[in-house]
Amino acid sequence: MVESGGQDAILVVGSLGFDDIETPFGRANHVLGGSTVYFSAAASLFAPVRVVSVVGTDMPLESFDFLRARGVDLAGLQVAEGKTFHWAGRYDYDMNSRETLATDLNVYADFHPRLPAGYEDSQHVFLANIHPSLQREILGQARRPRLTVMDTMNLWIEQERDALLETMHGVDMVSLNEEEARELSGTSSLVAAARYILSLGPRVVLIKKGENGCVMITPEGYFMAPAYPLEEVYDPTGAGDSFAGGFLGYLAGAPDLSDENLRRAVVYGSAVASFTVERFSVDRLRDLTRAEVDERYAEFRRLTYFEAL
Amino acid sequence: MVESGGQDAILVVGSLGFDDIETPFGRANHVLGGSTVYFSAAASLFAPVRVVSVVGTDMPLESFDFLRARGVDLAGLQVAEGKTFHWAGRYDYDMNSRETLATDLNVYADFHPRLPAGYEDSQHVFLANIHPSLQREILGQARRPRLTVMDTMNLWIEQERDALLETMHGVDMVSLNEEEARELSGTSSLVAAARYILSLGPRVVLIKKGENGCVMITPEGYFMAPAYPLEEVYDPTGAGDSFAGGFLGYLAGAPDLSDENLRRAVVYGSAVASFTVERFSVDRLRDLTRAEVDERYAEFRRLTYFEAL
Repeated sequence: MVESGGQDAILVVGSLGFDDIETPFGRANHVLGGSTVYFSAAASLFAPVRVVSVVGTDMPLESFDFLRARGVDLAGLQVAEGKTFHWAGRYDYDMNSRETLATDLNVYADFHPRLPAGYEDSQHVFLANIHPSLQREILGQARRPRLTVMDTMNLWIEQERDALLETMHGVDMVSLNEEEARELSGTSSLVAAARYILSLGPRVVLIKKGENGCVMITPEGYFMAPAYPLEEVYDPTGAGDSFAGGFLGYLAGAPDLSDENLRRAVVYGSAVASFTVERFSVDRLRDLTRAEVDERYAEFRRLTYFEAL
Repeated sequence: MVESGGQDAILVVGSLGFDDIETPFGRANHVLGGSTVYFSAAASLFAPVRVVSVVGTDMPLESFDFLRARGVDLAGLQVAEGKTFHWAGRYDYDMNSRETLATDLNVYADFHPRLPAGYEDSQHVFLANIHPSLQREILGQARRPRLTVMDTMNLWIEQERDALLETMHGVDMVSLNEEEARELSGTSSLVAAARYILSLGPRVVLIKKGENGCVMITPEGYFMAPAYPLEEVYDPTGAGDSFAGGFLGYLAGAPDLSDENLRRAVVYGSAVASFTVERFSVDRLRDLTRAEVDERYAEFRRLTYFEAL
């Protein structure tokens, strides 16, 4: 385990649970899921990670041994009487859209995130996709972090817009997908959508486009990265959260948050996500190594590089 | 007009006609259209262009003065008794798909392309989207060109598959869009689709993904380029043909067809196409300059560049 102060530590708050996943390539039942597990598995390849989440008494805690072995601190993992969060979803051949078949909040319904002692100095915070009010509770407990990133989803855009905008106003960066960006901004133009989101407070917007890569928008300009060309995407679940893990993981160890380093972080995020979707659940992330991620980073450069005039 | 032998000359064969276009931003009726006009307007910023096409007696030949002024040779333009080719189409907010409202072949129905004297030595050939048998007629008349590129469409994939495969076998490069690549190969995976198309004979495949950019696949690997982030796409008509014009135009003047130059050509194609869609018909291409295209090339580099590890 990497011991450290909060200098390069990353705090993540989000869901942990069991997933049932169906894709054109097969199905996986009762597998480990939730934004936090994908994020932690990815980010822990780069930096120490601290988890705040909740599971029920039905979750075998050995499930997280592979994370502990990578230095993930689980002191903030609450175990509550009852059943663990459960999600079931189905993907069609168009892996960019999915159908949710079931969402059972279970112990998640009464969850309030609390930072355990020693977590307050975490310099990097990832607010995974949970209710925007819970995201703000965490922001209130962290001590002047260097970088805060939040994810969100259509549910909060549609039903909790005011709370969402208030949370957005307090973070450095917002990560969301193409449809969410359009819905939030009420425009079909991604350029206009990005400008709108920047006007809400964040200084960086990351728009995820699935197999079409992603776009990072800052006041300085755009950076566009493709998705890695895979023969097949077996299971897109967790692509976004493991992207965030690679992104924040790289930045946690970077000397500054320059545009150059933000770009590198986007490519690291894309590289990790490209492994995630190669297998079901977090299976590919369990034994993924930093060396493999670095090799894929180099491949991304070969994929996109061209000479100046 | 640029005088030259066939060294850097580009021959294009395809349609010329009148378009009626409807997009969420407005409509344009009876405007200049057809693959050849978009291709020529783009390619002539880079190299001498020679046109083979047909129009009816209702087409005012002054329509092409702006092309003549850029050195486009129209000796291969046949004028036939009757009406000019006409296309009408409508785009929804999703500019990646369009609805064809009318296709009136008119004089195009009996068209057979013939190279006028002096065209046979053209070293670069673009076979725009016409019947694959007509494409092959042109290939048979050209003398050992350095580079041949063909476009196609779903109609030929569905109704003239054998002729299409035979033409593909004889060209260096195939350009087609995402849906066409999937339909031709019978697979949803673009990686598998590209491999299939390469197995048919061409050594380069260019898959166009509209607002999501494009992918060039060669036996050496992939190159992925984004589309330029525009606030609005006013009219996507001609994006693919003007891409091909920028692509072949750049290569016509390049000392070799190395991977490095092919990548540059993809970016030049993307740069020109990004101007095309800013206005209706060929309006933006009429006064577009090479300097503006070079500036956008530099912007593409800023959009995609990141440092090695």
